[in-house]
Amino acid sequence: MKRIPLLLSSCALLSLTLPALAADQDVIQFREAVMKTLNEQSAALGQIASGAIPDDSLVTHMDEVALAASTALKAFTPKVPGGEAKPAVWANWADFSKRMSDFAQQTAAGAKIAKAQGKDAALVQLINYADSCKGCHDMYRQEKK
Amino acid sequence: MKRIPLLLSSCALLSLTLPALAADQDVIQFREAVMKTLNEQSAALGQIASGAIPDDSLVTHMDEVALAASTALKAFTPKVPGGEAKPAVWANWADFSKRMSDFAQQTAAGAKIAKAQGKDAALVQLINYADSCKGCHDMYRQEKK
Repeated sequence: MKRIPLLLSSCALLSLTLPALAADQDVIQFREAVMKTLNEQSAALGQIASGAIPDDSLVTHMDEVALAASTALKAFTPKVPGGEAKPAVWANWADFSKRMSDFAQQTAAGAKIAKAQGKDAALVQLINYADSCKGCHDMYRQEKK
Repeated sequence: MKRIPLLLSSCALLSLTLPALAADQDVIQFREAVMKTLNEQSAALGQIASGAIPDDSLVTHMDEVALAASTALKAFTPKVPGGEAKPAVWANWADFSKRMSDFAQQTAAGAKIAKAQGKDAALVQLINYADSCKGCHDMYRQEKK
Protein backbone atom coordinates (compact mmCIF):
# COMPACT_ATOMS: atom_id res chain seq x y z
CA MET A 1 0.00 0.00 0.00
CA LYS A 2 2.93 2.27 0.57
CA ARG A 3 3.81 2.18 -3.10
CA ILE A 4 0.48 3.47 -4.34
CA PRO A 5 0.78 7.01 -2.99
CA LEU A 6 4.33 7.15 -4.38
CA LEU A 7 3.12 6.00 -7.78
CA LEU A 8 0.24 8.46 -7.66
CA SER A 9 2.52 11.31 -6.72
CA SER A 10 4.90 10.31 -9.49
CA CYS A 11 2.04 10.31 -11.96
CA ALA A 12 0.87 13.67 -10.70
CA LEU A 13 4.39 15.00 -11.05
CA LEU A 14 4.53 13.62 -14.56
CA SER A 15 1.25 15.19 -15.51
CA LEU A 16 2.40 18.52 -14.08
CA THR A 17 5.86 18.53 -15.61
CA LEU A 18 5.48 16.81 -18.99
CA PRO A 19 3.24 19.44 -20.56
CA ALA A 20 5.68 22.17 -19.41
CA LEU A 21 8.61 20.30 -20.95
CA ALA A 22 6.68 19.76 -24.17
CA ALA A 23 5.84 23.46 -24.27
CA ASP A 24 9.50 24.37 -23.75
CA GLN A 25 10.50 22.12 -26.62
CA ASP A 26 7.84 23.79 -28.77
CA VAL A 27 9.21 27.23 -27.94
CA ILE A 28 12.77 26.16 -28.82
CA GLN A 29 11.70 24.38 -32.02
CA PHE A 30 9.66 27.37 -33.15
CA ARG A 31 12.42 29.95 -32.67
CA GLU A 32 14.85 27.57 -34.39
CA ALA A 33 12.48 27.44 -37.38
CA VAL A 34 12.60 31.25 -37.51
CA MET A 35 16.40 31.42 -37.18
CA LYS A 36 16.98 28.60 -39.69
CA THR A 37 14.78 30.46 -42.16
CA LEU A 38 16.97 33.54 -41.66
CA ASN A 39 20.04 31.37 -42.13
CA GLU A 40 18.80 29.72 -45.33
CA GLN A 41 17.61 32.97 -46.87
CA SER A 42 20.85 34.73 -45.93
CA ALA A 43 22.78 31.93 -47.62
CA ALA A 44 20.63 32.35 -50.73
CA LEU A 45 21.31 36.11 -50.69
CA GLY A 46 25.02 35.45 -50.26
CA GLN A 47 24.98 33.27 -53.39
CA ILE A 48 23.18 36.01 -55.32
CA ALA A 49 25.55 38.67 -54.02
CA SER A 50 28.58 36.65 -55.14
CA GLY A 51 27.12 36.20 -58.62
CA ALA A 52 26.82 32.40 -58.24
CA ILE A 53 23.04 32.58 -58.67
CA PRO A 54 21.12 35.02 -60.94
CA ASP A 55 19.70 38.03 -59.14
CA ASP A 56 16.13 37.91 -60.44
CA SER A 57 14.70 36.79 -57.09
CA LEU A 58 16.87 39.13 -54.99
CA VAL A 59 14.01 41.30 -53.73
CA THR A 60 11.88 38.25 -52.89
CA HIS A 61 14.66 36.83 -50.71
CA MET A 62 15.11 40.18 -48.99
CA ASP A 63 11.36 40.20 -48.30
CA GLU A 64 11.67 36.72 -46.82
CA VAL A 65 14.48 37.83 -44.52
CA ALA A 66 12.42 40.85 -43.45
CA LEU A 67 9.35 38.71 -42.70
CA ALA A 68 11.36 36.16 -40.72
CA ALA A 69 13.13 38.95 -38.82
CA SER A 70 9.74 40.46 -37.96
CA THR A 71 8.83 37.24 -36.11
CA ALA A 72 12.17 36.67 -34.37
CA LEU A 73 11.95 38.85 -31.25
CA LYS A 74 8.59 37.40 -30.21
CA ALA A 75 9.94 33.88 -30.76
CA PHE A 76 12.61 34.57 -28.12
CA THR A 77 10.31 36.37 -25.67
CA PRO A 78 9.39 33.23 -23.66
CA LYS A 79 12.33 32.78 -21.28
CA VAL A 80 13.22 29.23 -22.28
CA PRO A 81 16.99 28.63 -22.46
CA GLY A 82 18.07 25.83 -24.77
CA GLY A 83 19.05 25.08 -28.33
CA GLU A 84 21.80 27.45 -29.43
CA ALA A 85 20.59 30.43 -27.40
CA LYS A 86 22.94 31.45 -24.60
CA PRO A 87 21.30 32.36 -21.27
CA ALA A 88 22.68 35.87 -21.96
CA VAL A 89 19.68 36.37 -24.29
CA TRP A 90 17.44 36.73 -21.24
CA ALA A 91 20.09 38.07 -18.83
CA ASN A 92 20.71 40.98 -21.25
CA TRP A 93 17.17 41.18 -22.58
CA ALA A 94 17.19 44.96 -23.07
CA ASP A 95 20.25 44.71 -25.33
CA PHE A 96 19.10 41.54 -27.12
CA SER A 97 15.62 42.86 -27.80
CA LYS A 98 16.98 46.17 -29.09
CA ARG A 99 19.29 44.33 -31.48
CA MET A 100 16.44 42.11 -32.72
CA SER A 101 14.10 45.09 -33.15
CA ASP A 102 16.81 47.00 -35.01
CA PHE A 103 17.42 43.97 -37.23
CA ALA A 104 13.72 43.72 -38.07
CA GLN A 105 13.62 47.43 -38.97
CA GLN A 106 16.88 47.21 -40.91
CA THR A 107 15.74 44.24 -43.00
CA ALA A 108 12.34 45.81 -43.71
CA ALA A 109 14.06 49.02 -44.81
CA GLY A 110 16.60 46.98 -46.80
CA ALA A 111 13.86 45.22 -48.75
CA LYS A 112 12.26 48.60 -49.59
CA ILE A 113 15.60 50.04 -50.68
CA ALA A 114 16.29 46.98 -52.87
CA LYS A 115 12.90 47.42 -54.58
CA ALA A 116 13.34 51.15 -55.10
CA GLN A 117 17.03 51.38 -55.93
CA GLY A 118 18.08 48.03 -57.39
CA LYS A 119 20.86 45.54 -56.89
CA ASP A 120 23.81 47.76 -55.96
CA ALA A 121 21.85 49.42 -53.19
CA ALA A 122 20.63 45.99 -52.07
CA LEU A 123 24.19 44.72 -51.75
CA VAL A 124 25.05 47.56 -49.37
CA GLN A 125 22.10 46.49 -47.23
CA LEU A 126 23.29 42.87 -47.26
CA ILE A 127 26.65 43.89 -45.83
CA ASN A 128 24.81 45.63 -43.00
CA TYR A 129 22.70 42.51 -42.40
CA ALA A 130 25.81 40.38 -42.14
CA ASP A 131 27.33 42.73 -39.55
CA SER A 132 24.15 42.64 -37.47
CA CYS A 133 23.93 38.86 -37.63
CA LYS A 134 27.55 38.40 -36.60
CA GLY A 135 27.40 40.95 -33.78
CA CYS A 136 24.38 39.29 -32.22
CA HIS A 137 25.56 35.71 -32.78
CA ASP A 138 28.94 36.49 -31.16
CA MET A 139 27.17 37.53 -27.96
CA TYR A 140 24.06 35.38 -27.84
CA ARG A 141 24.58 32.19 -29.83
CA GLN A 142 26.48 29.05 -28.86
CA GLU A 143 26.65 27.20 -32.14
CA LYS A 144 26.20 23.42 -31.89
CA LYS A 145 27.99 21.33 -34.44
CA MET B 1 58.63 13.34 -70.68
CA LYS B 2 55.67 11.14 -71.11
CA ARG B 3 54.22 12.25 -67.79
CA ILE B 4 54.15 15.96 -68.56
CA PRO B 5 51.48 15.91 -71.26
CA LEU B 6 49.40 13.70 -68.98
CA LEU B 7 49.80 16.19 -66.13
CA LEU B 8 49.01 19.09 -68.42
CA SER B 9 45.95 17.40 -69.77
CA SER B 10 44.86 16.59 -66.22
CA CYS B 11 45.26 20.25 -65.25
CA ALA B 12 43.33 21.36 -68.30
CA LEU B 13 40.60 18.92 -67.42
CA LEU B 14 40.54 20.29 -63.88
CA SER B 15 40.30 23.86 -65.08
CA LEU B 16 37.49 22.93 -67.42
CA THR B 17 35.49 20.82 -64.98
CA LEU B 18 35.99 22.51 -61.59
CA PRO B 19 34.07 25.70 -62.41
CA ALA B 20 31.20 23.59 -63.76
CA LEU B 21 31.19 21.48 -60.59
CA ALA B 22 31.26 24.59 -58.43
CA ALA B 23 28.31 26.00 -60.36
CA ASP B 24 26.42 22.73 -59.94
CA GLN B 25 27.03 22.82 -56.20
CA ASP B 26 25.74 26.40 -56.15
CA VAL B 27 22.56 25.37 -57.94
CA ILE B 28 21.96 22.51 -55.50
CA GLN B 29 22.77 24.62 -52.43
CA PHE B 30 20.47 27.41 -53.59
CA ARG B 31 17.45 25.18 -54.23
CA GLU B 32 18.08 23.46 -50.88
CA ALA B 33 17.96 26.89 -49.19
CA VAL B 34 14.55 27.45 -50.79
CA MET B 35 13.22 24.02 -49.83
CA LYS B 36 14.62 24.21 -46.27
CA THR B 37 12.88 27.57 -45.88
CA LEU B 38 9.62 25.92 -46.94
CA ASN B 39 10.30 23.10 -44.49
CA GLU B 40 11.05 25.39 -41.54
CA GLN B 41 8.09 27.66 -42.20
CA SER B 42 5.77 24.69 -42.67
CA ALA B 43 6.97 23.34 -39.32
CA ALA B 44 6.26 26.71 -37.70
CA LEU B 45 2.77 26.71 -39.23
CA GLY B 46 2.22 23.17 -37.99
CA GLN B 47 3.04 24.29 -34.46
CA ILE B 48 0.62 27.20 -34.76
CA ALA B 49 -2.07 24.95 -36.25
CA SER B 50 -1.74 22.50 -33.35
CA GLY B 51 -2.04 25.30 -30.79
CA ALA B 52 1.50 24.77 -29.45
CA ILE B 53 2.49 28.31 -30.50
CA PRO B 54 0.25 31.42 -30.43
CA ASP B 55 -1.27 32.31 -33.79
CA ASP B 56 -0.40 36.02 -33.89
CA SER B 57 2.23 35.53 -36.62
CA LEU B 58 0.17 33.04 -38.65
CA VAL B 59 -0.31 35.30 -41.67
CA THR B 60 3.38 36.29 -41.71
CA HIS B 61 4.42 32.64 -41.85
CA MET B 62 1.93 31.99 -44.65
CA ASP B 63 3.44 34.94 -46.53
CA GLU B 64 6.89 33.44 -46.02
CA VAL B 65 5.73 30.10 -47.45
CA ALA B 66 4.19 31.89 -50.43
CA LEU B 67 7.36 33.88 -51.11
CA ALA B 68 9.59 30.81 -50.85
CA ALA B 69 7.19 28.85 -53.08
CA SER B 70 7.34 31.65 -55.66
CA THR B 71 11.11 31.08 -56.00
CA ALA B 72 11.06 27.27 -56.01
CA LEU B 73 10.32 26.37 -59.64
CA LYS B 74 13.09 28.60 -60.99
CA ALA B 75 15.52 27.12 -58.45
CA PHE B 76 14.90 23.68 -60.01
CA THR B 77 14.99 24.85 -63.63
CA PRO B 78 18.73 24.22 -64.14
CA LYS B 79 18.95 20.49 -64.86
CA VAL B 80 21.39 19.59 -62.10
CA PRO B 81 20.55 16.29 -60.38
CA GLY B 82 21.82 15.95 -56.82
CA GLY B 83 20.89 16.62 -53.23
CA GLU B 84 17.50 15.09 -52.46
CA ALA B 85 16.03 15.71 -55.92
CA LYS B 86 15.29 12.54 -57.87
CA PRO B 87 16.23 12.60 -61.59
CA ALA B 88 12.46 12.27 -62.17
CA VAL B 89 12.23 16.03 -61.53
CA TRP B 90 13.75 16.66 -64.96
CA ALA B 91 12.52 13.45 -66.64
CA ASN B 92 8.92 14.49 -65.79
CA TRP B 93 9.51 18.23 -66.01
CA ALA B 94 6.01 19.03 -67.32
CA ASP B 95 4.40 17.36 -64.31
CA PHE B 96 6.94 18.68 -61.78
CA SER B 97 6.74 22.25 -63.03
CA LYS B 98 2.94 22.17 -63.04
CA ARG B 99 2.95 20.94 -59.43
CA MET B 100 5.41 23.66 -58.38
CA SER B 101 3.47 26.38 -60.22
CA ASP B 102 0.23 25.18 -58.65
CA PHE B 103 1.89 25.17 -55.21
CA ALA B 104 3.09 28.75 -55.70
CA GLN B 105 -0.42 29.85 -56.70
CA GLN B 106 -2.02 27.86 -53.88
CA THR B 107 0.25 29.35 -51.20
CA ALA B 108 -0.21 32.89 -52.52
CA ALA B 109 -3.99 32.40 -52.51
CA GLY B 110 -3.77 30.79 -49.06
CA ALA B 111 -1.97 33.79 -47.59
CA LYS B 112 -4.64 36.12 -49.02
CA ILE B 113 -7.44 33.94 -47.64
CA ALA B 114 -5.77 33.85 -44.21
CA LYS B 115 -5.56 37.66 -44.18
CA ALA B 116 -9.15 38.14 -45.33
CA GLN B 117 -10.91 35.32 -43.46
CA GLY B 118 -8.83 34.53 -40.38
CA LYS B 119 -7.45 31.46 -38.67
CA ASP B 120 -10.09 28.82 -39.43
CA ALA B 121 -9.91 29.53 -43.16
CA ALA B 122 -6.11 29.53 -42.90
CA LEU B 123 -6.11 26.06 -41.35
CA VAL B 124 -8.07 24.66 -44.30
CA GLN B 125 -5.37 26.09 -46.59
CA LEU B 126 -2.64 24.48 -44.50
CA ILE B 127 -4.19 21.06 -44.96
CA ASN B 128 -4.10 21.65 -48.72
CA TYR B 129 -0.43 22.72 -48.50
CA ALA B 130 0.44 19.54 -46.67
CA ASP B 131 -1.24 17.40 -49.34
CA SER B 132 0.66 19.20 -52.10
CA CYS B 133 3.99 18.86 -50.29
CA LYS B 134 3.50 15.14 -49.69
CA GLY B 135 2.28 14.39 -53.21
CA CYS B 136 5.32 16.05 -54.78
CA HIS B 137 7.85 14.69 -52.25
CA ASP B 138 6.57 11.14 -52.76
CA MET B 139 7.36 11.38 -56.47
CA TYR B 140 10.36 13.67 -56.65
CA ARG B 141 12.28 13.62 -53.37
CA GLN B 142 14.71 11.02 -52.07
CA GLU B 143 15.13 12.08 -48.46
CA LYS B 144 18.66 11.76 -47.11
CA LYS B 145 18.98 11.02 -43.41
